[in-house]
Amino acid sequence: MTRFATDADFLAALADLPEPDRSALDAAAARQGQLTKPAGSLGRLEEIALFMAGWQRHERPRAERIGVIVFAGNHGVAARGVSAFPAEVTAQMVANFRHGGAAINALAGACGASLNVVALDLDRPTGDIAQAPAMNVAECLNAINAGAGAVTAGLDLLIVGEMGIANTTPAAALCAQSYGGTAADWVGRGTGIDDGAHARKCTVVAEALARHRDQCDTPFETLRRLGGREIAGMAGAILAARLQRVPVLLDGFICGAALAPLAAKTPAILDHCLAGHCSAEAGHERLLRHFGLEPLLRLGMRLGEGSGAAVAAQIVRAALAAHNGMATFAEAEVAGRL
Amino acid sequence: MTRFATDADFLAALADLPEPDRSALDAAAARQGQLTKPAGSLGRLEEIALFMAGWQRHERPRAERIGVIVFAGNHGVAARGVSAFPAEVTAQMVANFRHGGAAINALAGACGASLNVVALDLDRPTGDIAQAPAMNVAECLNAINAGAGAVTAGLDLLIVGEMGIANTTPAAALCAQSYGGTAADWVGRGTGIDDGAHARKCTVVAEALARHRDQCDTPFETLRRLGGREIAGMAGAILAARLQRVPVLLDGFICGAALAPLAAKTPAILDHCLAGHCSAEAGHERLLRHFGLEPLLRLGMRLGEGSGAAVAAQIVRAALAAHNGMATFAEAEVAGRL
Repeated sequence: MTRFATDADFLAALADLPEPDRSALDAAAARQGQLTKPAGSLGRLEEIALFMAGWQRHERPRAERIGVIVFAGNHGVAARGVSAFPAEVTAQMVANFRHGGAAINALAGACGASLNVVALDLDRPTGDIAQAPAMNVAECLNAINAGAGAVTAGLDLLIVGEMGIANTTPAAALCAQSYGGTAADWVGRGTGIDDGAHARKCTVVAEALARHRDQCDTPFETLRRLGGREIAGMAGAILAARLQRVPVLLDGFICGAALAPLAAKTPAILDHCLAGHCSAEAGHERLLRHFGLEPLLRLGMRLGEGSGAAVAAQIVRAALAAHNGMATFAEAEVAGRL
Repeated sequence: MTRFATDADFLAALADLPEPDRSALDAAAARQGQLTKPAGSLGRLEEIALFMAGWQRHERPRAERIGVIVFAGNHGVAARGVSAFPAEVTAQMVANFRHGGAAINALAGACGASLNVVALDLDRPTGDIAQAPAMNVAECLNAINAGAGAVTAGLDLLIVGEMGIANTTPAAALCAQSYGGTAADWVGRGTGIDDGAHARKCTVVAEALARHRDQCDTPFETLRRLGGREIAGMAGAILAARLQRVPVLLDGFICGAALAPLAAKTPAILDHCLAGHCSAEAGHERLLRHFGLEPLLRLGMRLGEGSGAAVAAQIVRAALAAHNGMATFAEAEVAGRL
């Protein structure tokens, strides 16, 4: 189990990332070239098979043990009227996850994934980022380690999702801090806010950026000042997955925002990540462009919880079903190109 | 089992299409509004649930019995050097389907679909469409009925795929005849042809259009003159599915081309169809624009066999898992909007 003893350990891990296995990747590519189909005709399914082979270090990778971890946290900034829902919904939805009634329960079930819900101090909202850091150093490190520790051994694929009323506000701040742009460039409608709430949200994000910008000198500090517990948990889980060479299927805007401070500093952190989908939340398309990732799905989803990635996991499963299950031209006695 | 006794019967069925059940559709929409998520946050998954509810006439539709039918046929026009593969590959791939080694075997398996392979007179290629009609009236009607008859009762969702070396050539001709444009607008690289073969393919399509254009006065005549057996089979299956109110998940360019003559005459035939994916084959994007359908997936696939639709079926399954499995706000005791 991965654990970072200090913020320096977290940053050191980010600076020394393992690479995919080139020989497994080459073997998978050679296999793709022999399967009974025109070369390249499975499009991105072929790329996915190679990606999975490289990280799993196996010519025939699997997507049987898919783990979904949903992190939950509460945000001081919720009191600023930036969400369409009251803050108590975070805890209510955690109960819903545990009773099996949320979208992620249904979608994780549909792709055969396990679901682990990690609620992080829901009765202690983070600081209001427009006025103070979201967390102190120990709080942020604890949240990161809650994420890192939740990545169980032997996963074929990891999905991290979240629940946290108001969390598109810190997410917008994290993106603006990481990749530049104004608050308005990154602020969207979240769960469905009206124009007044949208204007408040832009103001809050601009205030947060003005307050913390000069002190966000490391990815840890950016997460600590502008993030939230569930966001830091996601970042910890994604980094821990990399150390264990577990590929990650990214979910929507919050998931990407958790990764943004790390990726802006060390773009190679994206190498073990696939973009599961592009959210309807305004900033996500922009963020994926900064990441240089093309999402597998564009279905207009904007729910969080890992829901978009759980749908995209079906694409990964299909890609590996074809990669592992198809016959070669020689096996099937099918003629090749003229 | 649906059977068309004459070409007039086929055209009469196309002119009298059943509609979805409005009350089931409304009930499904009401249910979506009560599930524990912000309204609209599942994006197209919500639309899919409503679509399926309307056609299955049930508030909680299913995607358990998914049927994939792969039609195979051979084309006289293959002798014109328009494909990268020799014509004997059609029969070899049918054997591969039957032994379980093709992409569609793996992908149908991954989404829990049944697979039925319908090989249509592989030892009798159609006429060379540049010089003669592809089929006579009896041949075309037989192929349509092979398709219609293959749609078994009680399916939740139908996918029709195909195998037929050279069949992107008649497909391009069908699209140009149905929606206008030049041969070059609709001709693509198929299984991966070089520039010389591409030029020949454009010439063949232009010749076919010049020869048959004035006599393509019904969808049946267009299919008969410019299509092929597997293409007519797909058209018959899609129309039969409509008569049985079975929704259809469209595959790629050939599948769309089979539907094009019907849809150009009677756009309402598209109402029970979802576009599974957009193929990398050049004409497919254009065809989907004419259909007014936004594909569920854009993965750069161009294999046929129903492969893209079989991947997209996972999206439909996910949509219904969420629609049927989620708790309502009242059931989960989650607070609503502020």
